[in-house]
Amino acid sequence: MTTTTRQPLNGVDTPTLFATLDAVKASPELAKFQFRAANRWVSGTHNRTTIRGFFGAGQEDSTRTEDFVYDADHPAVLVGTGNGPTPVEFLLHAIAACLTAGIVNVAAARGVTLREVRSTVEGDIDLLGILGLSKEVRNGYQGIAVKFEISGDAPDDVLRGLVEQSRARSAVYDVMTNGVPVSIDVRTS
Amino acid sequence: MTTTTRQPLNGVDTPTLFATLDAVKASPELAKFQFRAANRWVSGTHNRTTIRGFFGAGQEDSTRTEDFVYDADHPAVLVGTGNGPTPVEFLLHAIAACLTAGIVNVAAARGVTLREVRSTVEGDIDLLGILGLSKEVRNGYQGIAVKFEISGDAPDDVLRGLVEQSRARSAVYDVMTNGVPVSIDVRTS
Repeated sequence: MTTTTRQPLNGVDTPTLFATLDAVKASPELAKFQFRAANRWVSGTHNRTTIRGFFGAGQEDSTRTEDFVYDADHPAVLVGTGNGPTPVEFLLHAIAACLTAGIVNVAAARGVTLREVRSTVEGDIDLLGILGLSKEVRNGYQGIAVKFEISGDAPDDVLRGLVEQSRARSAVYDVMTNGVPVSIDVRTS
Repeated sequence: MTTTTRQPLNGVDTPTLFATLDAVKASPELAKFQFRAANRWVSGTHNRTTIRGFFGAGQEDSTRTEDFVYDADHPAVLVGTGNGPTPVEFLLHAIAACLTAGIVNVAAARGVTLREVRSTVEGDIDLLGILGLSKEVRNGYQGIAVKFEISGDAPDDVLRGLVEQSRARSAVYDVMTNGVPVSIDVRTS
């Protein structure tokens, strides 16, 4: 790889990306991050999450000046009020977004100019599990299918290699395929 | 359990909830759902997901009349442009929202009046994994901690039981703790 690939590309500040990698290599504790969300019940299955603060690179973030706010709900057919997508649909958003961001970063690092990255995600779920009507059916998705359409200034195998490298380094793909320990603490009043 | 518990409660149409359970019990194929999302790259790590259509209860949904649209991005400290939360933060939203909706449904079914349900979610992640700087560190969260504060018209053990039943039937908790098969298909041009 030559230094000519280390130019800003695809909207990615590639020189800063490599400088960040070097900085973390020198001080691995900078890599410890904590992300956070706060949720409150609104009514029925409708609830609202606020996302803002996080810790990373050795300090609390101060760049976010406003909350990100997201509603979730069940649709009418599941006796909800449809004031937002279902929680499981946000999982589909998360994996598409994570893989796409990775594809674009990897492309910038490899000097590949992208024109378009689109994806669709489908998640199949049999609600007999969560409805308590079958012990054989799991609660969650039985499978998730992601389909990418990528257009860029590189041959087919190079473009496919971007997706593969993104998958191999995706935080959401790891969580969703391998699982993660989740603790639940309750305080009542 | 007496029929007096089958009144609308906490904003949940409990009679319809039980009628829906009965309908699915009689026709289990109604429980097959497919949720979907579509994502497109904007610039750099910024991308946008659209959520609307889904299949369930034997037909395509027609109740959603507008798209739900969500941006995701990496923050500046990770060389993004901060136009949305990171993809992994949407996982925290998803689990809080799913557990909360479940708590409220279970409370309605059990005749428990809720006053407040709040939660915070923290996800710890060491980016040495996704940055490719350590083979020992996983890409995803190392652990997720959910903390609920629940206030309602029932003793402590009954309120805790709502959370436990919600956890036991949560689609997002299942996906995030047990993982799910994810296929990735690529078309290039």
